[in-house]
Amino acid sequence: MIIVTKPEATEEQLQHLLDRIKEAGLKAEVSRGALRTIVGVIGAEDVIREMPLAAIPGVESVTPVLKPYKLVAREFRGQTGVVKIGDVAVGGKEIVIMSGPCSVESRAQIVGIGREIAKAGARILRGGAFKPRTSPYSFQGLGVDGLKLLAEARAETGLPVITEVMDPRDLESIEQYADCLQVGARNMQNFSLLKEVGRSKLPVMLKRGMSATIKDLLMSAEYILSEGNFNVLLCERGIRTFETATRNTLDLNAVPVLQAETHLPIVVDPTHGIGLREHVTSMALAAVACGADAIMCEVHDSPENAKSDGEQALLPHEFADLVQRVKKVAEAVGRTV
Amino acid sequence: MIIVTKPEATEEQLQHLLDRIKEAGLKAEVSRGALRTIVGVIGAEDVIREMPLAAIPGVESVTPVLKPYKLVAREFRGQTGVVKIGDVAVGGKEIVIMSGPCSVESRAQIVGIGREIAKAGARILRGGAFKPRTSPYSFQGLGVDGLKLLAEARAETGLPVITEVMDPRDLESIEQYADCLQVGARNMQNFSLLKEVGRSKLPVMLKRGMSATIKDLLMSAEYILSEGNFNVLLCERGIRTFETATRNTLDLNAVPVLQAETHLPIVVDPTHGIGLREHVTSMALAAVACGADAIMCEVHDSPENAKSDGEQALLPHEFADLVQRVKKVAEAVGRTV
Amino acid sequence: MIIVTKPEATEEQLQHLLDRIKEAGLKAEVSRGALRTIVGVIGAEDVIREMPLAAIPGVESVTPVLKPYKLVAREFRGQTGVVKIGDVAVGGKEIVIMSGPCSVESRAQIVGIGREIAKAGARILRGGAFKPRTSPYSFQGLGVDGLKLLAEARAETGLPVITEVMDPRDLESIEQYADCLQVGARNMQNFSLLKEVGRSKLPVMLKRGMSATIKDLLMSAEYILSEGNFNVLLCERGIRTFETATRNTLDLNAVPVLQAETHLPIVVDPTHGIGLREHVTSMALAAVACGADAIMCEVHDSPENAKSDGEQALLPHEFADLVQRVKKVAEAVGRTV
Amino acid sequence: MIIVTKPEATEEQLQHLLDRIKEAGLKAEVSRGALRTIVGVIGAEDVIREMPLAAIPGVESVTPVLKPYKLVAREFRGQTGVVKIGDVAVGGKEIVIMSGPCSVESRAQIVGIGREIAKAGARILRGGAFKPRTSPYSFQGLGVDGLKLLAEARAETGLPVITEVMDPRDLESIEQYADCLQVGARNMQNFSLLKEVGRSKLPVMLKRGMSATIKDLLMSAEYILSEGNFNVLLCERGIRTFETATRNTLDLNAVPVLQAETHLPIVVDPTHGIGLREHVTSMALAAVACGADAIMCEVHDSPENAKSDGEQALLPHEFADLVQRVKKVAEAVGRTV
Repeated sequence: MIIVTKPEATEEQLQHLLDRIKEAGLKAEVSRGALRTIVGVIGAEDVIREMPLAAIPGVESVTPVLKPYKLVAREFRGQTGVVKIGDVAVGGKEIVIMSGPCSVESRAQIVGIGREIAKAGARILRGGAFKPRTSPYSFQGLGVDGLKLLAEARAETGLPVITEVMDPRDLESIEQYADCLQVGARNMQNFSLLKEVGRSKLPVMLKRGMSATIKDLLMSAEYILSEGNFNVLLCERGIRTFETATRNTLDLNAVPVLQAETHLPIVVDPTHGIGLREHVTSMALAAVACGADAIMCEVHDSPENAKSDGEQALLPHEFADLVQRVKKVAEAVGRTV
Repeated sequence: MIIVTKPEATEEQLQHLLDRIKEAGLKAEVSRGALRTIVGVIGAEDVIREMPLAAIPGVESVTPVLKPYKLVAREFRGQTGVVKIGDVAVGGKEIVIMSGPCSVESRAQIVGIGREIAKAGARILRGGAFKPRTSPYSFQGLGVDGLKLLAEARAETGLPVITEVMDPRDLESIEQYADCLQVGARNMQNFSLLKEVGRSKLPVMLKRGMSATIKDLLMSAEYILSEGNFNVLLCERGIRTFETATRNTLDLNAVPVLQAETHLPIVVDPTHGIGLREHVTSMALAAVACGADAIMCEVHDSPENAKSDGEQALLPHEFADLVQRVKKVAEAVGRTV
Repeated sequence: MIIVTKPEATEEQLQHLLDRIKEAGLKAEVSRGALRTIVGVIGAEDVIREMPLAAIPGVESVTPVLKPYKLVAREFRGQTGVVKIGDVAVGGKEIVIMSGPCSVESRAQIVGIGREIAKAGARILRGGAFKPRTSPYSFQGLGVDGLKLLAEARAETGLPVITEVMDPRDLESIEQYADCLQVGARNMQNFSLLKEVGRSKLPVMLKRGMSATIKDLLMSAEYILSEGNFNVLLCERGIRTFETATRNTLDLNAVPVLQAETHLPIVVDPTHGIGLREHVTSMALAAVACGADAIMCEVHDSPENAKSDGEQALLPHEFADLVQRVKKVAEAVGRTV
Repeated sequence: MIIVTKPEATEEQLQHLLDRIKEAGLKAEVSRGALRTIVGVIGAEDVIREMPLAAIPGVESVTPVLKPYKLVAREFRGQTGVVKIGDVAVGGKEIVIMSGPCSVESRAQIVGIGREIAKAGARILRGGAFKPRTSPYSFQGLGVDGLKLLAEARAETGLPVITEVMDPRDLESIEQYADCLQVGARNMQNFSLLKEVGRSKLPVMLKRGMSATIKDLLMSAEYILSEGNFNVLLCERGIRTFETATRNTLDLNAVPVLQAETHLPIVVDPTHGIGLREHVTSMALAAVACGADAIMCEVHDSPENAKSDGEQALLPHEFADLVQRVKKVAEAVGRTV
């Protein structure tokens, strides 16, 4: 940690700062410049990270040097880990394609779409039973009935299923039916929920919040790992910027940056990321090219009748085309589909 | 709702669109231009807001005309409403000042600070018992013990208390001790939580999420009102932008815009908004000048020992100065403190 | 154009609005709803785009329906055009790689790097002679001397050269030496400069400003085309967002969106886009996968001695590796290098 | 400057880094931690600011400690300076109100509006003769004729005039007619233009770019001062964020931050900042409350006929009301109007 004093800081203020550092059991190295003094703090930075040293009079800035996360850090494992969803491994050589409708709407719908995407090459089935909707007047999902339909679709298709958990109180029922939990972008910093899924036996896909930095995302994952659940996938799904031509700004820069920072596998969701059906495939290809371990995209057999997000869903045949094209790019970067 | 077709849209696609609108019981007015056709949909827009018309082939864009919120709309009440927290009215002529430490840390701390701020002019005491912290390794709050201390501080100072609820499962205990519930920025779109506080008898202060548009904030408030709880305050507390000189960008533009859009009273939190102790007072003055109904700011008697956010807390005497200066600006805009 | 009135709009205000539309020679279709009236304006929208109809009392919102650009619109040409820089065609099947140092520093440097990248597969040489630097105390470029060195490097390597123009007064000398003009991100809305390069015989690469929407970028390109110069390339080079882990946020979403909107070829600059040397190649691959027509990236033979942006430059051997990997992805998406 | 090495950095890499620092004539203090080594560089930071030390293998991060600006720094003068525009002093106790139409359109218009605003309390007349417009098809200003009309309006009203310079080639004619130069937001990093106005005898108002950080703004001002022109005003006029309810996000946080960082007086432009006529006055009051030295706002006598930005212009009587309300808030914060 590097502390810089203000030009007008007094000797007493500096001494007080040094005393506080010493009290915490750490060593301070002081370099006096013409206007400002720089104090380097050596030792276990987490001991003083929580001390509001910037509140000490005379202090201008406090800059941490070490990363605030431990368990999610790449150093912790040395390489990308493999997370298993059902019997599908995410994080290995194979790029895993997850797909399905935004919401589970009926048995026919989820089983039908499940069959189509399985045939086309999807390895995991997604579908929302509990839906976080911006408006209270929008369809809120089928709840437990939706979970049961998901389980039926798994039985019919052989695809493991992933579905969103929004409320700690729903976790128990979701665990009965799902193979992987999804924490949505809007709940990325719902720390109560993170702790709960951290205690689950199921793997968790954590979506990046719309205004979450990469560091914020890693800190939220750290919550889950710190509770004992190391089977976490990170999902880039678009951030909020000033651009209005796209629904969100899919931030593919996050893919190589995360790859260098963490051992957790990386999923990219081009559907929400760009939010324009005609461009989902392009963004899926880009995601694979820059290193994503998995792609999640939405498919619907009748988008104009979908109960949510129909305008960004691919038709089954468009999805089949996406898979074929992803396959080629995957091979070009030494991966498989 | 205005629907515009693509230049290449066929007559069949247009007809199909018109059929869908008719099915929904609405009237369509068609204006044919050289390249594009414009379809104006007349009638109850909410009927078709949920229909993914943009998913219909040949449709280029769908633009809603009416506001997606009803209960929170200013039209609903015609003027700013008054929300009572204990016996303090927010939304009237008086600008209400809410203050206290970020976290409740001990009896001495919360009662001590409570007394100081009451003397200086605060009308409501804030303090966190359940704390949403970015890191799992940071202080997470005293929980129920913190709530009890808050209630003791209320007894000692006469100030009603506001505290954050993060988890629906904590709501019952919080309701026993608090006078107002706070939903934090990170939970602004935790819809499960919004529904729960919507069923509470207590008033709710809803903080704007870091990447929430003003419309998003209003839609989240709509969740609470739609469950029956009309005692909602909206709190602007800074949004996330590219600027790094300040912790967040306090968006005061939201104050007059919200005032025109909704009847809910508006609180401004300059402490989190700018995140720099030395500038909190300036932003509080600005908030009052542009129409805020209440100010929330953090105070600590020993910021460098605070268990959270010490670097942005005012000292009690700085807070007393803030109140005096707010008073003058309040009078200049025809309000009182 | 769609105009919506306020709930409190009077009949006179509506009539006045309709009169203004009529005066402009356009036809208005009026749809009266319960609270608001919707006026659809049919006809040449550009006639009234400039009229501040939103300033008319009683008007709530004015929403244009048609695109504000004409010459850059994809409809204008129907497909991506080909722009020639020297004898290199950008916009065809071949993905063109442009490379070179940030700044021209010396004959040895620019010729040396030019040779290395030509051997590795670059088709165009970049190098700044006039440098837009954030600080007045930073290296500002060699000016005309730099231009001459660029021309020498072209003679030695056979690569056409592209260089930035910052000031209309420098244009004449730059035209003597360069094959393509670059307008930098900071000058994307320097309209005087855009008009000047619009009158040049040389092709122009226009970089997207850090806070420019895709529409803004197209409007700036429209300035150039409207002066008669149709040889324009658009370059995505990263936008400014809240993320601080990367220098900018390379917005690859812009690639397919631009491809659908315009006939101008699209260049992606991963170097400035992500700003982290170790991740430039990943982003270049992603850019090619989602449809870029050209890649621009910076190379230096001794980054730690570079006079500008050394920290994001690739070494020549890293660049050679990038080209090989780009080649494979290009083939996977049906292109060549 | 603080340099942190990567965990895998070798002893040779560290030594090479230290050699480079020594070569530059600076002193390095090395603190070795368990994983990373921290190198504090003592001495004139600007010597090495330009060296791309981050490009040295083994270096993880380079963090400057000192501010990159000198002449604009508050330390340089110790207090807010006073800049005179004609005989009007900006930066003193008086809050100066600048107003006028967006564009000069005719003699009658500019003289008429000038008289109205002078009567209401404006001290400086604004009006654009050269207009930076997003579209090439929009009104581009009257040019030199507009300048002459401005000078006539000055003669009629006694108000000094401020007008925008977009192109270095126009500077000479503008200097003949204007009392203050404006550099617009889109040209904030047009460094050629900054250097030119830095050599002018006239004061300069520099507007903050839409995606410029506060530091960027100060660095652009540093360009002007470094050429010898110390009469610079900084203008906050709204930044670009994700919010769409307002045209821009007026960032009032910048006011107290700039006040602490620089001696240059601060102008706030609520008209462009919020972009909604009905809320301009609220934002003007807020700007004064948090410390602005001047307010710039647009007025038009017939907004619906304005050739630019009519939708955000105040009517003369609304402006007169703004001045009266600003006056009261100014007094509440110890200033005058």
